[in-house]
Amino acid sequence: MHAHLPRRLVVGLGLAAAARLAVPASAQATDPMPSWRDSPGKRALLEFVAAVTTEGGPDFVRPSERIAVFDNDGTLWVEQPVPTQLPFILDRMRTLAPQHPEWQQDAMLRAAIAGDAATVLGGGMQGLLHVAGAAMAGNSPEEFQQIAAEWLASTRDGRWNRPYTQLVYQPMLEVLALLRARGFTNFIVSGGGVEFIRAFAEEVYGLPPHQVVGSTFALRPAELNSRITLLREPVVDFIDDGPGKPVGIARHIGRRPIAAFGNSDNDLPMIHYTLEGPGRRFGMIVHHDDAAREYAYDRNVHMGRLARGLDEAQQRGWHVVSMRNDWSRIFP
Amino acid sequence: MHAHLPRRLVVGLGLAAAARLAVPASAQATDPMPSWRDSPGKRALLEFVAAVTTEGGPDFVRPSERIAVFDNDGTLWVEQPVPTQLPFILDRMRTLAPQHPEWQQDAMLRAAIAGDAATVLGGGMQGLLHVAGAAMAGNSPEEFQQIAAEWLASTRDGRWNRPYTQLVYQPMLEVLALLRARGFTNFIVSGGGVEFIRAFAEEVYGLPPHQVVGSTFALRPAELNSRITLLREPVVDFIDDGPGKPVGIARHIGRRPIAAFGNSDNDLPMIHYTLEGPGRRFGMIVHHDDAAREYAYDRNVHMGRLARGLDEAQQRGWHVVSMRNDWSRIFP
Repeated sequence: MHAHLPRRLVVGLGLAAAARLAVPASAQATDPMPSWRDSPGKRALLEFVAAVTTEGGPDFVRPSERIAVFDNDGTLWVEQPVPTQLPFILDRMRTLAPQHPEWQQDAMLRAAIAGDAATVLGGGMQGLLHVAGAAMAGNSPEEFQQIAAEWLASTRDGRWNRPYTQLVYQPMLEVLALLRARGFTNFIVSGGGVEFIRAFAEEVYGLPPHQVVGSTFALRPAELNSRITLLREPVVDFIDDGPGKPVGIARHIGRRPIAAFGNSDNDLPMIHYTLEGPGRRFGMIVHHDDAAREYAYDRNVHMGRLARGLDEAQQRGWHVVSMRNDWSRIFP
Repeated sequence: MHAHLPRRLVVGLGLAAAARLAVPASAQATDPMPSWRDSPGKRALLEFVAAVTTEGGPDFVRPSERIAVFDNDGTLWVEQPVPTQLPFILDRMRTLAPQHPEWQQDAMLRAAIAGDAATVLGGGMQGLLHVAGAAMAGNSPEEFQQIAAEWLASTRDGRWNRPYTQLVYQPMLEVLALLRARGFTNFIVSGGGVEFIRAFAEEVYGLPPHQVVGSTFALRPAELNSRITLLREPVVDFIDDGPGKPVGIARHIGRRPIAAFGNSDNDLPMIHYTLEGPGRRFGMIVHHDDAAREYAYDRNVHMGRLARGLDEAQQRGWHVVSMRNDWSRIFP
């Protein structure tokens, strides 16, 4: 599919990919996580990776069972002030609204057309996906991915004036690269729409589409000019969030992960499910406590709330990462 | 998960995996498809692989877009006289029937308990999955996979007296290995239940669970002894067969394949969808015309019927393989 993306997109995403490689090879050879300060979380992760990859050791895990799962919004890239999928959808709703007078009958869709992000977010992931479904109904997954990729290439966020695909966390790119180099297969397991993430995951995270698990819309097969076409329907058929994350993992990956990375209470079922398997396991939570360089939020937000995750971390044995203290650098 | 399989299973599956490697390395170096006689299908496949992997050539496809999809029953292993999932399910139904008097109210389940394979098969893939759902409701996917793996290790087919996992087609194992060696990512895309195939696909085909796409049952997350458990419900929530195959591909793989292998009219939507993409593509149908060494069937069967596939092959540009003429060897 990428062969058919517009050139400016390839260039736009290429920048982020290039930035990922900006750390000198010599530094990486000595420290695979150079954007991490020495900290308990970093030490625990390096120790875990060494343990499960040491052949003959008590915690050895064969490569095909080295599955790691990552939430996306707030774990791999910025999710404040609103998840990136939202401005994408609102832009799309505004463009298409004149052709859809029926949208005015639906309070949530009306709010979306008016650009009222707060109301849409008030509906949680379900509200967001409801609007996303309407905005993209009738598109094939391939058309959708192209629309999303063009939007990502042509839009900049309001605070840093950078493409959203550059607002990924350099320390987490280093975790992805470290695990991949040590024989892990990494998956994104996100509440966001799967095709939106697939539109940039390969260029930005090095993850091919089949290593992205997300929420899905009903797809209807149809014949169009005697060719098979898949049409998105405005119906969410699976929400890969909260308790849905273990379901998405079992369905798509078919094997219990041995490492899980998240940032909100919605990721806890995925982290619990990971840690509850037998043998050596690893769970990590990214704590957004850096208002100067990124954002500070936990108990006080609706989407991305982190409360139980902080309360139970010690008892449950997962590692909480302080962005302010543990990361020497935020973005590539 | 495999770390926890019973030892006899590992041994049983190990045999099939070992058999796969029985071709001497020297022969493979000269001919990657030694169990194929020289034939138009073999030549076309080798030419296709050369074309899409020749860097700088007009048909070059970068590795991450080299996706190949394979039907399972009748394409990678024997599906006659009945698909292997059926005796597995019937065995399970017989075992559990005394605990489920309510099954007697359902004609299809009653037939299954009585071992009436013809009635169950008369309901097509939907009937088979309905019975499969009942037989495995309340199990977690991990428990299910263990039950299936134990059954596969302890059961032999009636004609060859071999474990079903040894009734895989050696020529197709060679295709899987050839494509993998040339940078392809192979996926099974089957109408069968995804977890049944995942129970043996890694040992037998070298395909990890996430490279198996199949029909799925509803999974309900529950907390059991304060651990997250996923329970299979007796409800089929996706049928990955016929027109469902392109849907399964779009959802799970997220990228249009460039090569597709099937054996029945139910695989045609998957093959059409593959061939309708831009650039160089490859489609192949395995024709069961070898009653002596395997089975001969096409237009005359209910499940696995091949009629349109034969009629349209030339016009549509896919390759029909004669098992009798083109394969020098059937099983490992």
